[in-house]
Amino acid sequence: MANPNDRREVGLPSTSRLEAFSDGVFAIAITLLVLDLAVPARDELGHRSLAAVLARQWPSYFAYLVSFAVIGIIWVNHHAMCTLARRADRLVLFANLFLLLTVSVIPFPTRLLAEYLTAHGQDAHTAAAVYSATMLVMGIAFTGFFLAITRDARLMHTPLDPATVRATLRRFSAGALVYLATVGLAFVSAIVTLIVHALLAAYYCFDQLAPARHESPEL
Amino acid sequence: MANPNDRREVGLPSTSRLEAFSDGVFAIAITLLVLDLAVPARDELGHRSLAAVLARQWPSYFAYLVSFAVIGIIWVNHHAMCTLARRADRLVLFANLFLLLTVSVIPFPTRLLAEYLTAHGQDAHTAAAVYSATMLVMGIAFTGFFLAITRDARLMHTPLDPATVRATLRRFSAGALVYLATVGLAFVSAIVTLIVHALLAAYYCFDQLAPARHESPEL
Amino acid sequence: MANPNDRREVGLPSTSRLEAFSDGVFAIAITLLVLDLAVPARDELGHRSLAAVLARQWPSYFAYLVSFAVIGIIWVNHHAMCTLARRADRLVLFANLFLLLTVSVIPFPTRLLAEYLTAHGQDAHTAAAVYSATMLVMGIAFTGFFLAITRDARLMHTPLDPATVRATLRRFSAGALVYLATVGLAFVSAIVTLIVHALLAAYYCFDQLAPARHESPEL
Amino acid sequence: MANPNDRREVGLPSTSRLEAFSDGVFAIAITLLVLDLAVPARDELGHRSLAAVLARQWPSYFAYLVSFAVIGIIWVNHHAMCTLARRADRLVLFANLFLLLTVSVIPFPTRLLAEYLTAHGQDAHTAAAVYSATMLVMGIAFTGFFLAITRDARLMHTPLDPATVRATLRRFSAGALVYLATVGLAFVSAIVTLIVHALLAAYYCFDQLAPARHESPEL
Repeated sequence: MANPNDRREVGLPSTSRLEAFSDGVFAIAITLLVLDLAVPARDELGHRSLAAVLARQWPSYFAYLVSFAVIGIIWVNHHAMCTLARRADRLVLFANLFLLLTVSVIPFPTRLLAEYLTAHGQDAHTAAAVYSATMLVMGIAFTGFFLAITRDARLMHTPLDPATVRATLRRFSAGALVYLATVGLAFVSAIVTLIVHALLAAYYCFDQLAPARHESPEL
Repeated sequence: MANPNDRREVGLPSTSRLEAFSDGVFAIAITLLVLDLAVPARDELGHRSLAAVLARQWPSYFAYLVSFAVIGIIWVNHHAMCTLARRADRLVLFANLFLLLTVSVIPFPTRLLAEYLTAHGQDAHTAAAVYSATMLVMGIAFTGFFLAITRDARLMHTPLDPATVRATLRRFSAGALVYLATVGLAFVSAIVTLIVHALLAAYYCFDQLAPARHESPEL
Repeated sequence: MANPNDRREVGLPSTSRLEAFSDGVFAIAITLLVLDLAVPARDELGHRSLAAVLARQWPSYFAYLVSFAVIGIIWVNHHAMCTLARRADRLVLFANLFLLLTVSVIPFPTRLLAEYLTAHGQDAHTAAAVYSATMLVMGIAFTGFFLAITRDARLMHTPLDPATVRATLRRFSAGALVYLATVGLAFVSAIVTLIVHALLAAYYCFDQLAPARHESPEL
Repeated sequence: MANPNDRREVGLPSTSRLEAFSDGVFAIAITLLVLDLAVPARDELGHRSLAAVLARQWPSYFAYLVSFAVIGIIWVNHHAMCTLARRADRLVLFANLFLLLTVSVIPFPTRLLAEYLTAHGQDAHTAAAVYSATMLVMGIAFTGFFLAITRDARLMHTPLDPATVRATLRRFSAGALVYLATVGLAFVSAIVTLIVHALLAAYYCFDQLAPARHESPEL
């Protein structure tokens, strides 16, 4: 503890507390989703069976599963990105906070979409657009977090070569464009929008599991 | 930090963040259960005493205790399994996410069962079946997590010998069959189903505390 | 990672994950308390001012503060106890789970007492008795956790000498008797009961801050 | 583990668990804020569109963003302060608990202000005053945490020189005076009060990001 590097280490702390705090926010946001799976009170059932009422709540389960997958995948990617980083300066901390803002707000559009997915008219489109817009901002925040880490080689274990950074940014930009497209899609069909988000989550999930990735093996 | 193994370590990170995130989800799921212990508002009591109203809420306390025990025991086992693992690759991360999905959803069937345990007719059976089915899927997810870790010796501190893996899988399969049986039992009696889940939790708890286990000392 | 002690270490893991999980439960239980500070809806105010309605909610704030202090102090003591422990076996894990059960349930009696503290007749006594009984069980669980750790010298950094263990157990037993007395006190006055719990929390807090403690310096 | 310093280290533990517990409380408080973004039920809409109802909820989003930024910035500063500390004694633990009390209560005044920001008459002022008072107490608690750590050089990695401590305290006192002024401002305009809190958060955020700070480089 007495070595002369300590002061510098103190001034530019490791990423461990950033990760602990982020893990907390991810874990809470992903677990709070369950609060929106409503249990109908006994006297609300009327003459309907519980099974019928639960079955009619399928938009809640669907939105729950998609949002769980989305938060889970962001966590896996956040985890991978933090593995690249060795130190976190203030800009990284605030870029991370902005990303966490977009993650921790996800239960709100999820609840909104669960309530209005099968509504008639414009309201379903509004709910789906809010959901898609949240994902778009989250994608932008994730790109910002990536840029904050990779902008300074001293923050990283092994600096990424510029070609890898560019390739990753191209991939993130393509993702952002797709999310932007889902905002437009929301005004066509709310259900199709949620299905596309489910497919995107599945795509990212399998993409992550692909054994070989020629561009950026660590990401 | 400059040794040549670093890149590989970076590419295949340790299990520490997986554990931190999982601990967060377990801790939140187990603590959120308390939100379903309802406090009756003063003006809802009518001419009944608070003590009488609280006493009539016994299904809530019972379901709370069983679900707390279930999540606690899964945590203890998750803890033991992570002790075996040295590294987590993407498949382990996603198998873990699926397990966490089944854990974090537990407050929903718990609330459902608390509300309908003493309902007349089919609704109590429906609620108990949803509860049992959640436990069944959780058991399957736990087996998947075990397989994801043990499939690759490089992920483990000390590879398990194939006989131990087979014995553990047999034990997990037996557990899954028991959970499947509780789904059927739900259609006979909701209360008996919850009692069986309480007994299963007590069994797993004492099983874990047994001083000597000849098959797999670490699990 | 290849030294021959590893297997044993694997079999008897360190307390780090027990602490991480416990910290999560403590942090969530202590933060969930805020959900019970109710914000009156605008249209519920009638002709009363918001300030008057908020002022009438003083039992909520009082119960919130006492429960926050209680959970905080248990956390500080849990922290101190884990500092003594080097390894956690299954019995320690389950004793800890039982302690966490009593901690994570605290928001329920807190809400109950906040709602009924100023109720007329028996209901205030019922709520205060439930609150006191929770504290009593928590004290017993804490003693059990202490016994689980100190029963086996191999689990500790530096074994406590038997005299210290006996002195600590005497202190814990005195605490349990006081909590038992507050259960009786609840049937005399709910408000006095909550004041006594506040004083107990203040006592434990200052006791902890005392610079010199001749009996057991580490606890 | 057998070196003679261990006992002392045991008696005066490192800050790691304080940080883990605090990270948990910060993460939960910041994520619980989302529960107050209300989703109107379908049958509450009447003839209004969802978009119109959501738009009218702007005080909720505004208060959410300001409180998120406030908690995030306190976390960044707490993080920086813990980087200075090497050991935490009881007084540091309790000073930290008091700070966490003020952080974990923030969802309550946030909800209050969201509900009453646009109310007519005195109620908006009351809500804004409660919000500002919370920030004032939080600022005082943060100063107390700073004093608890810096009062004893043995608790720190590198003791701060007295001039730095004085300069930091002057800065904290100025901040407390500003928060005190926002309590007064609340009685003039609730909306202006929330805007000032947003500007204060932005100021602290950019202040933190300033590349060079001549007074205290580490804080």
